[in-house]
Amino acid sequence: MIHGKNILGFELSAKGETTFHTYSSPAGEVLPGSFVQANAEEVECAVAKAKAAYAVYKTKSGLEKASFLRTIADEIEALGAELIERACAESGLPEGRITGERGRTTGQLRLFASLLEDGHWAEATIDTALPDRVPAPRPDIRKMLLPVGPVVVFTASNFPLAFSTAGGDTASALAAGNPVIVKVHPYHAGTNELVAGAIADAAKKTGMPDGVFSSLNAIEFSVGETLVLHPEVKSVAFTGSFFGGKSLYELAQKRKEPIPVFAEMGSVNPVILLPEKLLSAPAQLAATMASSLNMGAGQFCTNPGVIVVVESEAASSFQATLAEEIKKLVPQAMLHNNIYKNYTTRTEQIFTKTQVEKLAESDTEGSSLKGRPAVARVAGWDFVQHPEIAEEIFGPFSLLIVCSGADELEKVLAAFDGQLTASVLATNADVEKYATAIKTIQEVVGRLIFNGVPTGVEVCYAMQHGGPYPSTTDGRFTSVGVDAIKRFVRPVAFQDAPDAYLPDELKDANPLKIWRRINSQLSQEPIKR
Amino acid sequence: MIHGKNILGFELSAKGETTFHTYSSPAGEVLPGSFVQANAEEVECAVAKAKAAYAVYKTKSGLEKASFLRTIADEIEALGAELIERACAESGLPEGRITGERGRTTGQLRLFASLLEDGHWAEATIDTALPDRVPAPRPDIRKMLLPVGPVVVFTASNFPLAFSTAGGDTASALAAGNPVIVKVHPYHAGTNELVAGAIADAAKKTGMPDGVFSSLNAIEFSVGETLVLHPEVKSVAFTGSFFGGKSLYELAQKRKEPIPVFAEMGSVNPVILLPEKLLSAPAQLAATMASSLNMGAGQFCTNPGVIVVVESEAASSFQATLAEEIKKLVPQAMLHNNIYKNYTTRTEQIFTKTQVEKLAESDTEGSSLKGRPAVARVAGWDFVQHPEIAEEIFGPFSLLIVCSGADELEKVLAAFDGQLTASVLATNADVEKYATAIKTIQEVVGRLIFNGVPTGVEVCYAMQHGGPYPSTTDGRFTSVGVDAIKRFVRPVAFQDAPDAYLPDELKDANPLKIWRRINSQLSQEPIKR
Repeated sequence: MIHGKNILGFELSAKGETTFHTYSSPAGEVLPGSFVQANAEEVECAVAKAKAAYAVYKTKSGLEKASFLRTIADEIEALGAELIERACAESGLPEGRITGERGRTTGQLRLFASLLEDGHWAEATIDTALPDRVPAPRPDIRKMLLPVGPVVVFTASNFPLAFSTAGGDTASALAAGNPVIVKVHPYHAGTNELVAGAIADAAKKTGMPDGVFSSLNAIEFSVGETLVLHPEVKSVAFTGSFFGGKSLYELAQKRKEPIPVFAEMGSVNPVILLPEKLLSAPAQLAATMASSLNMGAGQFCTNPGVIVVVESEAASSFQATLAEEIKKLVPQAMLHNNIYKNYTTRTEQIFTKTQVEKLAESDTEGSSLKGRPAVARVAGWDFVQHPEIAEEIFGPFSLLIVCSGADELEKVLAAFDGQLTASVLATNADVEKYATAIKTIQEVVGRLIFNGVPTGVEVCYAMQHGGPYPSTTDGRFTSVGVDAIKRFVRPVAFQDAPDAYLPDELKDANPLKIWRRINSQLSQEPIKR
Repeated sequence: MIHGKNILGFELSAKGETTFHTYSSPAGEVLPGSFVQANAEEVECAVAKAKAAYAVYKTKSGLEKASFLRTIADEIEALGAELIERACAESGLPEGRITGERGRTTGQLRLFASLLEDGHWAEATIDTALPDRVPAPRPDIRKMLLPVGPVVVFTASNFPLAFSTAGGDTASALAAGNPVIVKVHPYHAGTNELVAGAIADAAKKTGMPDGVFSSLNAIEFSVGETLVLHPEVKSVAFTGSFFGGKSLYELAQKRKEPIPVFAEMGSVNPVILLPEKLLSAPAQLAATMASSLNMGAGQFCTNPGVIVVVESEAASSFQATLAEEIKKLVPQAMLHNNIYKNYTTRTEQIFTKTQVEKLAESDTEGSSLKGRPAVARVAGWDFVQHPEIAEEIFGPFSLLIVCSGADELEKVLAAFDGQLTASVLATNADVEKYATAIKTIQEVVGRLIFNGVPTGVEVCYAMQHGGPYPSTTDGRFTSVGVDAIKRFVRPVAFQDAPDAYLPDELKDANPLKIWRRINSQLSQEPIKR
């Protein structure tokens, strides 16, 4: 049964007066549960509990935090069919996708657990004392990454599990040693409640402090705003629109103490089809692009929203086949009505631009949340003069940019803003010939893909899911992969500290047997002093 | 001969109409050289050159960049007495201090060179392909830190060499692969010109591109403002006042693409004297504090501006001796008249506060730039209610906070804002007994020092010179030590890239023989695929 309450640490609370429901997608039927928006008192309580919990939680060992994360994963799996059904209903996403997302979510939690068990992530660095150095002795200095304090996570509409309540933001913030307060997305408050309950249960079972996790229902902006402005909140994570991310970022800069907002916002993920590669299989490449474009109704943050080619016979053939493939695509249900309406309006608008030529739309008309796949074309030089043409249209839409030659290609690539990814489809000869062009687009992306589509973001060590502004608010960090933990820590140095005071990672004996950088060299050895 | 011109890459330029001079300190005599402020055209030229240079400079190998940094150090040393004399004259600092600062500057450059020669700093991380994984294969993903683009460095008034033209900011930005544009501090434009010339010469000698370094004279805010707002500038470093740092930070947030501003601003660096330690040697501790306080006329960013004790007989004895020691201190020349005037006004003001008791001033009156050392006292509870009492007074001033007991000590420590450092003077028994209090202050500092004074910032691997806001704009980074390089890079991931396209750090063969994280484990082995 869905209770609709806020989860304040180990308590349930429903003191507010504003309530809301969630709806099945695409049918739009009211789903069970009336959700009570957190009122000011409850927001304050969640933060106060998080602050108190932080004093305890930050002292938990890596193994203790790992056990907490593993138990969260177990508890989410134990929710079984109830979670899958609710998430499918609230998002309209098919069961296979939701099951996959659950696997990604629990996999992420367990990956962060293994990171904590391994212990190396904290970047322990030691410079030992040089008491005899002249003119002045060197003290003993040791540094490591430590948590920052309560983190607020805004859940994402397009990934109700993997980028939401127990998603990568929460997992990495908890792994780092920070309490988390989730601001619930109103479209999947039921899914959130189930997962948030699982986290609270895991916290109790593993002896974590009351307040290490809270979940606040919200349908109005005020809840999120109060959280971001609260002096005890130290960091914010968000996945969503450029407008939403930018608003939170600006809010956080207005505080007496500005705090980081890690907002993953949007990206057109340009796909560059280089000539020799294109010549090898224009029709097949067109089919691949069309299918990547419509994956998840075009709502992945790495949807290929722009395709760049250089004029040639093969490019014409590619364009023709792409148009045919787009016609064959079947419109899929989008996540909610706002996204569908926005998609429909924006595609209509772009076709009215004088520089833009409509190439094709799906033969099936869009209807009831189902966005109609479409593709348009613009000449390279027109794009260079009006790069705003390529602003993201969230959904199954791509813009084909056709360049007159290699020079124009470089200019086109130089005109792009920050992107999560770019893809280069190229033979080795293409890569060599167009190296300067590729390095141009590399400068504005977080991940550069060769001969692959941008959809599909591995959760691993080497992933960089974060590009220069405006694709995120801070391209120096990733929101996917183990390095996501680096968003919620800061380095602290200890000078001449007694061994007993030092965290385990920095103690003489190296009880965790981790790799440490000692006097500039990596070592697993203990320190003798 | 001082030419007074702007250094735009390999050109000298003086097209502007505003000129200024520098003055000897403390005498105030005009020094040779008329400096021409950069005009708008010259600012634009420096940025355009930096942008063009970036395309070349970012492709230089670690060894090439290391050779550039080592040559800068050599060229600075080759300036010999001319540099020392000019820096002493412009800053009023004694020769020993300036010689020491030069050693720190060249040492930093060579440390970054050795970091580049070693090559590990770029955090090469590789997850190899898993072509047979089900349900979907894993691509090959490789990530490393890469430069961000042109960096603007504002030189600091209190360190004319080590935190200025070729100081830690410039050294780390160049090491990372970014061109640097220096905005000159008008009080030591002559010192800057000599050092900037050395950098330009080193760039020519080592084959670095024209524009990898520029230096712009400025006496008005407009030069710095134009630089921070320029779309091709990607990062900013600043050391100075809270007001100055905050202004630049806010300016950078107003850009279409916000950029990071690493401003090191101010800090009172609380020193906590715990009871057992205090009992052991109250008089000696008082003498140590007094001397640290007056070091460099109190103008180090780690000056001990606040001392915290718990009421006791030993504390009273400490207070009495501290007062005596302060009386004996001889006022020293401050860096320039604004600092001196501000110091004098602020100390006069604090003594008028009802909660504050003046304990002692130097027996020697302040005069002509020489700030009069002073110490005041406030009760713990009064500080908790009015923490603004402890706002930094830049100069040889300390505030003694006397707590009524252990409970009040914790409340006092919880009332501090972000600090570069805190020092705990304590026996091991004190550390154990007051662990909670120490962890409270640890939460707001970048470096926690045991039984030492905060002055003295080692340039090493484990240094963290950067604490939470407002001591810096971003406590997740350090401005001293090798990790300062992390301010000017971002991670970029390459997916399924041809080996030939990859940077050396990520190539299969591991030609640099660096440690890499491969499939989660550290390794120096090549990759077989």
